[in-house]
Amino acid sequence: LAFLKRRAPFAQLAIGGAAKPAGVAPMESLCRALLSGRGEASGVAIAADLLAAYDRASDEERHGFFVLLADAFGPDAEDLARAVEHYRSHPREAEAELARASEPRRQELLRRLNSAPGATARLVAMRADLHGHMKREPGRFDAVDADFVHLFSSWFNRGFLRMEEITWDSPARLLERVIRYEAVHHIRDWADLRGRLDPDDRRCFAFFHPSLPGEPLIFVEVALTQALADNIQAILRPERPVLRADDGAVAVFYSISNCQPGLRGISFGHFLIKQVAADLQRSLPHLRRFSTLSPIPGFRAWLRAAVDGDEAALLAPLDQPLWWERADAPAIRQALLRRVVAYLTEAKDAHGRPLDPVARFHLGNGARLERVNWLADTSSTGLEQSAGLMVNYVYNLRRVEELHEAFAHDGVVAVGLPFRQLVKALEDKGR
Amino acid sequence: LAFLKRRAPFAQLAIGGAAKPAGVAPMESLCRALLSGRGEASGVAIAADLLAAYDRASDEERHGFFVLLADAFGPDAEDLARAVEHYRSHPREAEAELARASEPRRQELLRRLNSAPGATARLVAMRADLHGHMKREPGRFDAVDADFVHLFSSWFNRGFLRMEEITWDSPARLLERVIRYEAVHHIRDWADLRGRLDPDDRRCFAFFHPSLPGEPLIFVEVALTQALADNIQAILRPERPVLRADDGAVAVFYSISNCQPGLRGISFGHFLIKQVAADLQRSLPHLRRFSTLSPIPGFRAWLRAAVDGDEAALLAPLDQPLWWERADAPAIRQALLRRVVAYLTEAKDAHGRPLDPVARFHLGNGARLERVNWLADTSSTGLEQSAGLMVNYVYNLRRVEELHEAFAHDGVVAVGLPFRQLVKALEDKGR
Amino acid sequence: LAFLKRRAPFAQLAIGGAAKPAGVAPMESLCRALLSGRGEASGVAIAADLLAAYDRASDEERHGFFVLLADAFGPDAEDLARAVEHYRSHPREAEAELARASEPRRQELLRRLNSAPGATARLVAMRADLHGHMKREPGRFDAVDADFVHLFSSWFNRGFLRMEEITWDSPARLLERVIRYEAVHHIRDWADLRGRLDPDDRRCFAFFHPSLPGEPLIFVEVALTQALADNIQAILRPERPVLRADDGAVAVFYSISNCQPGLRGISFGHFLIKQVAADLQRSLPHLRRFSTLSPIPGFRAWLRAAVDGDEAALLAPLDQPLWWERADAPAIRQALLRRVVAYLTEAKDAHGRPLDPVARFHLGNGARLERVNWLADTSSTGLEQSAGLMVNYVYNLRRVEELHEAFAHDGVVAVGLPFRQLVKALEDKGR
Amino acid sequence: LAFLKRRAPFAQLAIGGAAKPAGVAPMESLCRALLSGRGEASGVAIAADLLAAYDRASDEERHGFFVLLADAFGPDAEDLARAVEHYRSHPREAEAELARASEPRRQELLRRLNSAPGATARLVAMRADLHGHMKREPGRFDAVDADFVHLFSSWFNRGFLRMEEITWDSPARLLERVIRYEAVHHIRDWADLRGRLDPDDRRCFAFFHPSLPGEPLIFVEVALTQALADNIQAILRPERPVLRADDGAVAVFYSISNCQPGLRGISFGHFLIKQVAADLQRSLPHLRRFSTLSPIPGFRAWLRAAVDGDEAALLAPLDQPLWWERADAPAIRQALLRRVVAYLTEAKDAHGRPLDPVARFHLGNGARLERVNWLADTSSTGLEQSAGLMVNYVYNLRRVEELHEAFAHDGVVAVGLPFRQLVKALEDKGR
Repeated sequence: LAFLKRRAPFAQLAIGGAAKPAGVAPMESLCRALLSGRGEASGVAIAADLLAAYDRASDEERHGFFVLLADAFGPDAEDLARAVEHYRSHPREAEAELARASEPRRQELLRRLNSAPGATARLVAMRADLHGHMKREPGRFDAVDADFVHLFSSWFNRGFLRMEEITWDSPARLLERVIRYEAVHHIRDWADLRGRLDPDDRRCFAFFHPSLPGEPLIFVEVALTQALADNIQAILRPERPVLRADDGAVAVFYSISNCQPGLRGISFGHFLIKQVAADLQRSLPHLRRFSTLSPIPGFRAWLRAAVDGDEAALLAPLDQPLWWERADAPAIRQALLRRVVAYLTEAKDAHGRPLDPVARFHLGNGARLERVNWLADTSSTGLEQSAGLMVNYVYNLRRVEELHEAFAHDGVVAVGLPFRQLVKALEDKGR
Repeated sequence: LAFLKRRAPFAQLAIGGAAKPAGVAPMESLCRALLSGRGEASGVAIAADLLAAYDRASDEERHGFFVLLADAFGPDAEDLARAVEHYRSHPREAEAELARASEPRRQELLRRLNSAPGATARLVAMRADLHGHMKREPGRFDAVDADFVHLFSSWFNRGFLRMEEITWDSPARLLERVIRYEAVHHIRDWADLRGRLDPDDRRCFAFFHPSLPGEPLIFVEVALTQALADNIQAILRPERPVLRADDGAVAVFYSISNCQPGLRGISFGHFLIKQVAADLQRSLPHLRRFSTLSPIPGFRAWLRAAVDGDEAALLAPLDQPLWWERADAPAIRQALLRRVVAYLTEAKDAHGRPLDPVARFHLGNGARLERVNWLADTSSTGLEQSAGLMVNYVYNLRRVEELHEAFAHDGVVAVGLPFRQLVKALEDKGR
Repeated sequence: LAFLKRRAPFAQLAIGGAAKPAGVAPMESLCRALLSGRGEASGVAIAADLLAAYDRASDEERHGFFVLLADAFGPDAEDLARAVEHYRSHPREAEAELARASEPRRQELLRRLNSAPGATARLVAMRADLHGHMKREPGRFDAVDADFVHLFSSWFNRGFLRMEEITWDSPARLLERVIRYEAVHHIRDWADLRGRLDPDDRRCFAFFHPSLPGEPLIFVEVALTQALADNIQAILRPERPVLRADDGAVAVFYSISNCQPGLRGISFGHFLIKQVAADLQRSLPHLRRFSTLSPIPGFRAWLRAAVDGDEAALLAPLDQPLWWERADAPAIRQALLRRVVAYLTEAKDAHGRPLDPVARFHLGNGARLERVNWLADTSSTGLEQSAGLMVNYVYNLRRVEELHEAFAHDGVVAVGLPFRQLVKALEDKGR
Repeated sequence: LAFLKRRAPFAQLAIGGAAKPAGVAPMESLCRALLSGRGEASGVAIAADLLAAYDRASDEERHGFFVLLADAFGPDAEDLARAVEHYRSHPREAEAELARASEPRRQELLRRLNSAPGATARLVAMRADLHGHMKREPGRFDAVDADFVHLFSSWFNRGFLRMEEITWDSPARLLERVIRYEAVHHIRDWADLRGRLDPDDRRCFAFFHPSLPGEPLIFVEVALTQALADNIQAILRPERPVLRADDGAVAVFYSISNCQPGLRGISFGHFLIKQVAADLQRSLPHLRRFSTLSPIPGFRAWLRAAVDGDEAALLAPLDQPLWWERADAPAIRQALLRRVVAYLTEAKDAHGRPLDPVARFHLGNGARLERVNWLADTSSTGLEQSAGLMVNYVYNLRRVEELHEAFAHDGVVAVGLPFRQLVKALEDKGR
């Protein structure tokens, strides 16, 4: 007789959490208590009180709390000055002292806060709040954010994450979150979700952290197909025929979504893709290929700035419906393909990396640019951002390290045969 | 009835872990690779390789590895010197840079090592190895150990631990470890273990970390009794009558054992005691008291150094069997009680804290010294270390913070009525 | 966070289940094989083959299979005749032989069929098919159905059922079934479902059988309220205020649905209501009352036949929208209440039991008829069947046995004070 | 790491189970209440009361209860007589009535008893009690026992059983039962048990019933070996080398134990062996053979009766220690092998089946007699029952049905090449 547990999976401590007057001053004194000797005896209770006070705090009070973290809980100035002088006279000897003295005290504060029940999730949410204030006051809280990043990088280390398959047998509460978090190809309703989870040729995997039960950190949706997928419509169509999983030759990663704004900058995607590829290969030995079907989200914005004159006129209809059925569509196609090749291989950001964020991510992971697909995403977002084009990035598990190295050191963009053929065809035509 | 799965709870990655030649040089190059750009693409595989190389390494090679960590993976000297100078000119501005530059690179190395499957347990074991080398070369590896402590404090934060009850329905593999790890009152065999877990008036709780499944970090054994327990023999006797749990008035914490040598210095005990007390109070509302029945492990050693002359002669029989049945036992008793009162309340270490480690621990947690018990542990260890005496430290959950403060700031040792009465009786006799 | 495994919870046997030509003859020979000595060696495989053949069979072939069960797998006529004669001469001695000989062989056939993986669910579905054929040929398969009932009564014994709470954390596949099976107050969509499961003042419980994992047999929806609920609209309204569970004084069972047509006649409802009431009482000790909010599904049909003349004219508007806003609504109300009192307390079926099936069920379980509620269900079904009226049947756990006895032996309908007051008021008015 | 809950896995109902005066009369009135209309309203509570009364009853009172079942709860004599006469006049029409009337009322009584929490386990124990009384009064309770068998055959149908692997990660409470129930090769202690569960070349599987959680019904111990095992000593030796599971070519079923005396006669063994063989084949595709290493428990008893004269004198030393080291051991060996061949292939019971119960079981399952092994079990039991000999019965999953048929219809004992060679060699010598 095992009932599912309702509510409160983490037992509340008897002590702590009682309602106290909010405001910045009480939060400050709780911070000081938490870092003091009292914190050793009653740390969990004080941490719970402080988190409860933060929960009740207004936006303005939270701002005050972040100001406090920024200004009053950095390193101890005297200690640090002493350590610096000690280091200058005896560098080797003073290394550890300097490291200790230069660590902002808010790091220890956050570690102690994390001892309260359910604290990890609330600290992740706290950082999402912080980002709101950072947008309004650029630079003001960079050091505070850096400390969150430092701690979260340690706490959300790959070694602590668990990959789980998400299926139609997963808890509804979790699936509701999947619907909400899906960031690439919007999930319309529960029937749409079921179509992505339950058929034999569909898979979904996510990373979870033990302290955030039921909360995915990132998830990827996979379609098993017979050939490299060349458009998203066929994958998401409700009435499509279903393939037996054992007949799949290609695993297509067609959507990957980060779920926690508070974990921005903590990178999970490449771990997830490689783990999913390795696991799928083991359970479905017939799979021969792992590929994405990816948008090119920066293409149209770049294109608008890049073209002018006749080309601009030619491409003007891109904002009109069904432009691909126009008489001059072949010319538009030719121009777009020429431009997308340039965008993907030549357009760089300030650090010399690909300008397109999706290209940057997959090429940086050691994937190769396999193919550009025409009319591959005719949704409104697909047309607005990528002119309906999509890209396959192929992951060859045995070569990702080598390709990553070539990309990272020498900026080499690895490309597959179909992409080379496209380039060749465009050149031939161009002559 | 959901059984734990046999073998390989954490899926092995297809890549990584293959046999490579051992030796320090390969480990060094793997360390460098792990910290390089390659580590970003293939970090999990490199980490697995490095851990596998360490597993195969001889004791001497491991020593070489620790030397490497100590000497080659501290902070970058140039970066740090630059940050120091920057800090001296612009302290506020350079704080974050200095914190970053002063962090030894081995911290990031250990974080990346932790990404491999099963790595956390192996890093804990690695630190236990390190302690062996630290004993042989005091001071040589202190900085390395400090980095382990820094990371483990974050990874084994209270917020990440799970308290679980250990019962006779727990997996045999876990119970086998409980037998092995019990450090206070030796568990003779499985029948002895069963007697500590299964009767209605016995409980056992442990902390676990999600990355070390089935491996307790610390556990405590509890007896539910009608009155404050005054000896361990009655608690451990196989043929004793069993109390209904609902009839228990006192929860006696009679044994608490740390399980992981590699986590030495990361403190779990006070969290565990308080959590267990809070949970027991909730599930057994009739409980009126939470107390330990504790050894006084440093007493005899201190006593030997403290006494001389007639007193030394009087106490000489303590090494003989059944000394408490001698004719002069009343005089011995009187002398021992006088001395143990002094030992517990006056003997201090170099930092002014109680010399006895168990007293230091419980008083530091906010417990009070309730009672000294005569002939309370007549096992060979009990006689050799504590002259057969044991102490009850009582935890009053509502007062632990206050007592902790008084103890930490003013060195006040809180005592209960029975202890005060003992002191009074000794004084009266002494007149 | 332990997810249910995707696909094939019950391991397929290597042997069995292969495609064979369908048709009645192969099924017959498999039946004979299953009952023969072969069945002892390879029973599981033969059973799997037979179930697979049945799965592939057409409706007509299934009809043939049921004819076979009815005509060829009754008791062995010779054996039975011999046992009957033996019994006539030596009654006591031949009792066991007679019981054995009179058991239709299809019972053993169904028991052996049940040894195949997943067989129980398929036998339940088989009986649902059988009911289709029974409707078309009344009487033809009664003996076969009686054997299903005999076995299912044993297999689905209360002792083998598990009550589980269904929550928003239950698997989506299970919740999808809840939406489909809800038979009283239609669940519009997943948001409607969530509103019945997730708020603190809502509960849902179901019985499950270990061999039908994820398949509810029956479920009940409960609302925790401060006072006895007098209409369904307030319970199902999306925007309603939510009560803290601990503030609930009444548990209202507002919907109870049988899920498996193949288990018709196997009674679970009274076990479920009493178990849920006992469990809720334990977990929410503040609850003072357990009541239903029930439809009166046979009222309007009975009413149409019962009224004529002026009363028929008065009640004619009942088929019009918003009839309760008419000028003559008070008179309609008076007439309806008079009639519903008569319907509930006087209208009987051929066995002398209440004509209304819902009244029959709850009164037979030992509940009392507490109150009739006006405009309590203004949904189209509620108006069409019950003229918008609903009834509270109250379960007093300490009196259910006594009330059941009075009802079963003497036909006494227990009524509560509000119902008595209604009767009195109607009588007063009637004078 | 999800621990089983301590104590009371099946929630107690609030009602029922209170202490009532024991004695046969109260049990009788509870039986009558349970079968009456009251049983419908309060069946679970009455069933719980009756089981509680039985638990408290003395051995004599239980005897009275069984007498009651035998004499007062058979079929209703009048009903049955009427049905018999109806059947004689209208056989087809009265079939169902006759089946119903001839079913002893104690079957329905036992089914209703089973509705109480935890009842199934208690009914199984009740039948074990009954067997005690049956031994003392043969024939008196056969009809009662037949009703238990009839119900248990239905409740413990293969379709309701779950096969689970028992490992060193199983709950200690379960493993303690495995130690207690092992009936073939005694398990000395927990270290011996661990040696049978934890090494990579050992497996153990059991059947469980959902209503008896943690209680195995039957379990089998398996050794993975490179060649067909020819003695039990090598399998059970603590210091033996361990094989990698993937290197195993043969799965040796060296011990199979029924655990529940109350389920005697309900056959699980052949289902378990075949399921284990099928599952092992799937998870270890390199396995080429499934064989037992079995005792010949009836051999010595049969031998004593069978031999006389010189042969008796030759075999007289069999009761002496180390007889196989005697000078005349070759002659003893020759005589024993000759005799065991005759015993296994020619000695039959009254039904013409093999006299040896183990041979009867495995040959009846469709196994073949593969080989007789000399000095294969030199434990005291092995020597006393089987003269130290053991037999391999080989299961070829593709041929079990065919061999079973030949055995069941024609009494053919299938033998393997080694056995034929042994027969040949003995014949050659005999000439």
